[in-house]
Amino acid sequence: MIRRKDFFGLKDMSADDIRYVLTTAETMKYILNHKSKKVPHLQGKSVVLLFYMASAREKLSYEMAGQHLGATVVDMTREKFGNEKLKDMGQLIDQMGADFIILRHPMAGSASFLAENVNASVINAGDGYNENPAQSLLDLLTIKENKRSFQGLKVSIIGDILHSRVSRSNIWALTKLGADVRVAGPPTLMAPELENFGAKVYFNAKEAVKDADVIITTKMRVEEHEKNTMPSFDEYKNLFRIDENLLKYAKNDVIIMHPGPIMKDIEISTKIIESKQCIINDHIANGVAVRMAVLYILSQVGGGIIG
Amino acid sequence: MIRRKDFFGLKDMSADDIRYVLTTAETMKYILNHKSKKVPHLQGKSVVLLFYMASAREKLSYEMAGQHLGATVVDMTREKFGNEKLKDMGQLIDQMGADFIILRHPMAGSASFLAENVNASVINAGDGYNENPAQSLLDLLTIKENKRSFQGLKVSIIGDILHSRVSRSNIWALTKLGADVRVAGPPTLMAPELENFGAKVYFNAKEAVKDADVIITTKMRVEEHEKNTMPSFDEYKNLFRIDENLLKYAKNDVIIMHPGPIMKDIEISTKIIESKQCIINDHIANGVAVRMAVLYILSQVGGGIIG
Amino acid sequence: MIRRKDFFGLKDMSADDIRYVLTTAETMKYILNHKSKKVPHLQGKSVVLLFYMASAREKLSYEMAGQHLGATVVDMTREKFGNEKLKDMGQLIDQMGADFIILRHPMAGSASFLAENVNASVINAGDGYNENPAQSLLDLLTIKENKRSFQGLKVSIIGDILHSRVSRSNIWALTKLGADVRVAGPPTLMAPELENFGAKVYFNAKEAVKDADVIITTKMRVEEHEKNTMPSFDEYKNLFRIDENLLKYAKNDVIIMHPGPIMKDIEISTKIIESKQCIINDHIANGVAVRMAVLYILSQVGGGIIG
Repeated sequence: MIRRKDFFGLKDMSADDIRYVLTTAETMKYILNHKSKKVPHLQGKSVVLLFYMASAREKLSYEMAGQHLGATVVDMTREKFGNEKLKDMGQLIDQMGADFIILRHPMAGSASFLAENVNASVINAGDGYNENPAQSLLDLLTIKENKRSFQGLKVSIIGDILHSRVSRSNIWALTKLGADVRVAGPPTLMAPELENFGAKVYFNAKEAVKDADVIITTKMRVEEHEKNTMPSFDEYKNLFRIDENLLKYAKNDVIIMHPGPIMKDIEISTKIIESKQCIINDHIANGVAVRMAVLYILSQVGGGIIG
Repeated sequence: MIRRKDFFGLKDMSADDIRYVLTTAETMKYILNHKSKKVPHLQGKSVVLLFYMASAREKLSYEMAGQHLGATVVDMTREKFGNEKLKDMGQLIDQMGADFIILRHPMAGSASFLAENVNASVINAGDGYNENPAQSLLDLLTIKENKRSFQGLKVSIIGDILHSRVSRSNIWALTKLGADVRVAGPPTLMAPELENFGAKVYFNAKEAVKDADVIITTKMRVEEHEKNTMPSFDEYKNLFRIDENLLKYAKNDVIIMHPGPIMKDIEISTKIIESKQCIINDHIANGVAVRMAVLYILSQVGGGIIG
Repeated sequence: MIRRKDFFGLKDMSADDIRYVLTTAETMKYILNHKSKKVPHLQGKSVVLLFYMASAREKLSYEMAGQHLGATVVDMTREKFGNEKLKDMGQLIDQMGADFIILRHPMAGSASFLAENVNASVINAGDGYNENPAQSLLDLLTIKENKRSFQGLKVSIIGDILHSRVSRSNIWALTKLGADVRVAGPPTLMAPELENFGAKVYFNAKEAVKDADVIITTKMRVEEHEKNTMPSFDEYKNLFRIDENLLKYAKNDVIIMHPGPIMKDIEISTKIIESKQCIINDHIANGVAVRMAVLYILSQVGGGIIG
């Protein structure tokens, strides 16, 4: 099905391809839970992490995903690239025999730009405010494990949508998969064009979570707050915090997801955080599983061979 | 014998358990001296170095110990952890499939705190001024190789005891193993509670090294010196430097150990440093061997499986 | 043939030894172009990168060369070495079981100094303004692939010779291999002693490139420019830029090499950069192949065993 050597995001993937990645990720979870995790699926393959923005989570996730599959991983996070441009640096890595380049770069579209210039498979681990597809696949896998099917599922995404790559990917993917997606947050942090992708936009959390099966919260960035682009934390709390009061409007078996680290009592109330409904650290294993799935699927397409 | 998944320090270990680790380390030295060092004992296991304080020595030692045993090692030294707390960071690494977390953290007790919150085996690579057990095991293995038995052995520890994690571990272990432990150093750098552990405290180096089989010197920290918590280097030299004069009081076949790097002519005289009695760089291989032993023993207990 | 455990530079190598490394590198290119790159030639061997000066290119090249051959690689770039001296740090790494130490250090002669003090094989990845032999081997392999034989080949080296380690290595190697080597650049950036090694020194680019088969350009360092040790970029352009005008004097099938990254239109004109004659990124794979060859040859000599 998937015939491209690269993986940029969920926006351009079909519902079938997304389902295929999720099914593959489920089999990867078996490997992760083995006593000896190492399998030879990517034996002899080289993965280079080319991170222009450091991220402990992304580094760990991709490094462990690669190693569990038997690949060798070279970490180029925060290395001094001198005055090398992205294209030159990518070609350098490519010529040295890398099969995969995991790119994290502040510019939207950088992954697809790089992919045009190298033979290696390029995986987007965050390109500006555009996408970070593995983070979104993690959410999708967690939803699938908890709710089985996406068809007709009511999913509410609450918080800062404007600066959230993963929310964008989630909206694109969930609508394609047949979910009923609702979005709510402070007006200054919304992205109105989202309606074009089939999401319903609300400025009132109660309406947005009505009968919800799943609530996904986003990380509030303190730096954005300081720029006066969002209300005070007190205002935010009153309007958008996930607490018992708000959850009365959702389904009884609603699950609440947050990418962590969390601002307690501002984004979600302490009581809800400590409840079984709230999934924060528990789904991190899924993040490694989806990255293993992406690496494995691309290696089958012929990463590093097909131009 | 050892049934815990974690390794925090020598304080709480029995003499039998310490002997078992040392015996295992001796077999690991055979592997280290092979032409092809790689053995499959930890094949498929993931080791994550979670270092909140950078240390070239600890990084190298654990990274090479893990790799010699066939494990994959991910280095998270000096990564930006953002506002992630130790517990969250640990759970993140745990969920990603790590079997071992090697923790280096400025807070005493941090390793045992982390161990309560993860399934992975936690190994303490330095927690504040508490313990760094592998450094102490290195000393113990070196003493064993040179003196065969600990029973009745006269061991003198000279220098800054207050800020020396490894001295604390050494005192706990050596007294348990039957050695006669004496401690000496400037009064402001002593830890008087050490008498409770069976060590004799002296403020006179000559008395402390009387008939000594082994003299262990500690590293003087210049930063402590600047805080006026210790005498001038000249005073220190006169009272506690290991030189020919002082060694007249010890046994003829006394060995002198120093963790390196050394302040020449202040901590030990140049002549003694260059003598065969002085063991500085020669015992570093033991540091890798004991770390291999700890990793191997914990993997047998079921690191990453038992909670 | 090669019986030394270490690899410092091309100055002291015989023409036969250089040819042997190049032939081995050619077979390594087969491995690099395989779908599964991993071969077991260095299985069980430990490679430590001890870089006192960071270099993304050198790190990537050696890390990937080592991994393709099945070795494990520990990166000690930019680690804090504390007040450890090179000798102490080297002995530390040596005792820990390293088979190869790849040294990058600002002091000329540091690699041979280190080699005297350790059992591991020391490979020079840049010692001050002295040599960086793998970079030079890369150039030699590229020339061999394009021109088959070195005998009688006219090779012109243009630019900043004074600060260019690789030019020095190239001159030593090419003259030994039978090439006719000519050097040209601004007088303040020349190294007049080069005539002793059989190179002809010109201060006029047209004479230097007359009938040239190969032109090797060097990187101009902006920091040198600021120190007034070289003419303005405009002057440089007029006198030494590789452009259509200058190439009239060279052979029709001349190839132009540059180590990259390149200062467009100052070192080489845009038109020439985009022509097929100009080899910049295309020969990077050769850089990994020659490093694989050096690692493999030294491992046969008995790296880590012979003192």
